Amino acid sequence: MQKINKLLVANRGEISLRIMRTAKEMGIKTVAVYSEADINAPHVKFADEAVCLGPPPSNQSYLLADKIIEACKDLKVDAIHPGYGFLSENAGFAKKVTDAGIIFVGPSPSSIEVMGSKLAAKNAVSKYGIPMVPGTDEAITDIQAAKVKAEEIGYPILIKASAGGGGKGMRIVKYEGEFEEQMQRAISEAQSAFGDGAVFIEKYITSPRHIEIQVLGDIHGNVVYLFERECSIQRRHQKVIEEAPSAVVSPSMRKAMGEAAVKVAKACNYFGAGTVEFIVDENLDFYFLEMNTRLQVEHPVTEMITGKDLVKEQLLIAEGQPLTFAQEDLKINGHAIEVRVYAEDPKNNFLPDIGRLATYVRPQGHGIRVDDGFEEGMDIPIYYDPMIAKLIVHDENREKAIQKMLRAILDYQITGIETTLAFCSFVLEHEAFVSGNFDTKFVEKYFSPDKLDVKWEEAEMELLASLAVDVLEKKKFGLKRVSGQNGISNPRTNWKNRLI
Amino acid sequence: MQKINKLLVANRGEISLRIMRTAKEMGIKTVAVYSEADINAPHVKFADEAVCLGPPPSNQSYLLADKIIEACKDLKVDAIHPGYGFLSENAGFAKKVTDAGIIFVGPSPSSIEVMGSKLAAKNAVSKYGIPMVPGTDEAITDIQAAKVKAEEIGYPILIKASAGGGGKGMRIVKYEGEFEEQMQRAISEAQSAFGDGAVFIEKYITSPRHIEIQVLGDIHGNVVYLFERECSIQRRHQKVIEEAPSAVVSPSMRKAMGEAAVKVAKACNYFGAGTVEFIVDENLDFYFLEMNTRLQVEHPVTEMITGKDLVKEQLLIAEGQPLTFAQEDLKINGHAIEVRVYAEDPKNNFLPDIGRLATYVRPQGHGIRVDDGFEEGMDIPIYYDPMIAKLIVHDENREKAIQKMLRAILDYQITGIETTLAFCSFVLEHEAFVSGNFDTKFVEKYFSPDKLDVKWEEAEMELLASLAVDVLEKKKFGLKRVSGQNGISNPRTNWKNRLI
Repeated sequence: MQKINKLLVANRGEISLRIMRTAKEMGIKTVAVYSEADINAPHVKFADEAVCLGPPPSNQSYLLADKIIEACKDLKVDAIHPGYGFLSENAGFAKKVTDAGIIFVGPSPSSIEVMGSKLAAKNAVSKYGIPMVPGTDEAITDIQAAKVKAEEIGYPILIKASAGGGGKGMRIVKYEGEFEEQMQRAISEAQSAFGDGAVFIEKYITSPRHIEIQVLGDIHGNVVYLFERECSIQRRHQKVIEEAPSAVVSPSMRKAMGEAAVKVAKACNYFGAGTVEFIVDENLDFYFLEMNTRLQVEHPVTEMITGKDLVKEQLLIAEGQPLTFAQEDLKINGHAIEVRVYAEDPKNNFLPDIGRLATYVRPQGHGIRVDDGFEEGMDIPIYYDPMIAKLIVHDENREKAIQKMLRAILDYQITGIETTLAFCSFVLEHEAFVSGNFDTKFVEKYFSPDKLDVKWEEAEMELLASLAVDVLEKKKFGLKRVSGQNGISNPRTNWKNRLI
Repeated sequence: MQKINKLLVANRGEISLRIMRTAKEMGIKTVAVYSEADINAPHVKFADEAVCLGPPPSNQSYLLADKIIEACKDLKVDAIHPGYGFLSENAGFAKKVTDAGIIFVGPSPSSIEVMGSKLAAKNAVSKYGIPMVPGTDEAITDIQAAKVKAEEIGYPILIKASAGGGGKGMRIVKYEGEFEEQMQRAISEAQSAFGDGAVFIEKYITSPRHIEIQVLGDIHGNVVYLFERECSIQRRHQKVIEEAPSAVVSPSMRKAMGEAAVKVAKACNYFGAGTVEFIVDENLDFYFLEMNTRLQVEHPVTEMITGKDLVKEQLLIAEGQPLTFAQEDLKINGHAIEVRVYAEDPKNNFLPDIGRLATYVRPQGHGIRVDDGFEEGMDIPIYYDPMIAKLIVHDENREKAIQKMLRAILDYQITGIETTLAFCSFVLEHEAFVSGNFDTKFVEKYFSPDKLDVKWEEAEMELLASLAVDVLEKKKFGLKRVSGQNGISNPRTNWKNRLI
């Protein structure tokens, strides 16, 4: 056991701040790193010490492994927390850190390596009976053999290039009759794109949900699961709303998924915080997808429902301490939802909308948490992920949590840039989301920019109308506002005074 | 049952905002009231509608019952929430509201009236076996009879004037030998001060703790208790730090106090949220003190450990709904602490320090809640209670909650006025507080202004020193700061960039 006295966070923004807050509570000194673009960022101000790594982009600063390790030696840093992204799943970095005699707050380099490769991960967990999406274990070129296999798996079938990526050589086959033709096409596409015609075939999940299990393991071999996170609401294949627990996971399914996740972790001798991702089909059968060997962006929803501070647990584990609780000590308390507030324009395909946070006022109240890395007046740099904040709510049940989130979104005052807030509000009010009956195709199924316009432009008009009434009424009766007379409620009334 | 569609909050500041946030989550429209001094206050901006009641002080605005009821009629308001202070425990106001056909979010006028009088309250609960501080039930003038009674109660004894108040005619008698002389003096003092020499005698509690029980009752006669709040840390006889649960209350004591509190509530046919205050002596015997017939300032600590939104419960009860949970559904989850951030100077007898919030940045993170009614740049008005904010933390246990609060206090950036933050930090680190072994005399026993100076002035010096090092190091190595080299940690490092 080696006590951590000083921690360097090899990251930026909200996650750097979030990690340092916990370190401070534990009496651990903090060191921030930053690029020249982040010199005025809150994470730099918060830290006890801060080191400039160089200019943006990241390969000249946040990804400079050697420079970071050098800074640790200079400043007598005991441990490095990599956060998420950047160097967090880089086995080479983890090894360099450990070799330099510094604690890496994360799993062993070999765990990272195994889980970093889909094939190695599949092999590692194969003997533990973890459910996998049915398919060929090895690449195949023989069309007739493939057809027999497809028959076995059952349609629809997905054919994908062994050497591939980016959708090239990928084909969905809906019924037997079109198998041969599609297989032929996939092979030629793969051949011409990668010079290798070998393909895999696997079951195609029509309505996939993305549900993941949080695990925590110590170096003494104890592993527990902290239940699931529902992450099916995505745009551009990236999560935007997460919740815990999932509306569709029953206690028995939770136990089965949790135990499968623990097996995956044990298969690679995992320690630290990790996430085992599953794909869940329309029958609620679940299949192992991959393991993320780091803290997830969406970890706060798990913290809200379990009462555990995952970063604190990571740091204790990194010190070599055994887990302070067992599986049976963990209980789900209420319901938590996170929305990611991105500087993106939902009306323009969620493309980043960079600029200055002219107004930036966070919502407050019982059961509301904002993890962010910006302050009013700051620019959102173009070099990094355009996430401004994570807005997290916790309440007694899912229905109340949705209501609380809708209120919190209305109270979040951001001007100067477009954000995903209005879009998230649309999702949270949509009957598919409310009923729990949705999958990763929510956005393509239900969303179009005009859906936002109606609601939010009505709100803008109502706002202007009520301001006009204001001016009149104020003089007459000393009343500040007599709104809502036309029967339209105004979801943005809290913004009114900024515009007066 | 009458659904509330529009709620007027007859209050200001943090509690007005806090109530309106919950109303918004419940889909209830909100109306704020304000005095001319509060025209730019956040509670006014937050509300859907707002009504100016008049100029400060309160008797020309926030206490104008008739004007408030008039505004309700004009704006078609269904219900009034009085918050705390102002009209919240005014039975006459509650009656006027009800007579006007408006829902009063609180108990019946008669419950308010009974509990508003110490004698009436004592009479009401007398037949329920509620423990009371031992003493005479009636005023007494006969010295020998009083002495016999004192003997029965046991020394030390408190003698207080029947007609009195403000400490006049009050005497502590430590042993039998001085009883007659002190009784004589008390009678003459009472006679000359109030024209009535009658006195009460009761047991004097040497080391009193103030512990209160939160209750909730519906109009159907169901009453539950939501455990205790420890409120013994006070300055100028006013609470400044509260926590739940108390460090000294055992499960059996909690049950006994809770059941006593429920009996008190039932004795006056109570419905709504109420608080039964007890005094607890050094043997952990508890005695009924009084009942507050409204929401308490410190209600958030109860919300944190129970997961219940007390304002939501108040509104549901006011609509006539039965409680949605029973006693056995309530569990204590972790530990919560609240510190009240007052615009007061702890170095100057906690006198108000009015001025402008030049810097105002709230702490953030997992398990941290700030309920406030100000924004950066605002003035703290001289007309009202100088409370700026309530900082509330929640963690798994008391030790972790204390650490989290200390971190949150350090991250709270307030300049322009003196506050109670440094004082609260002193208390939270004091061994008497940490051990749980303290009473309402904490401040007089342990605190003096020099206790603050050492710690916080060292911090200031360290801050300046590290800034000087900054300037040198920055040029040489591109390092932002190499602090802590003299071994003194700097609790205010997060402020450094504001001063650069």
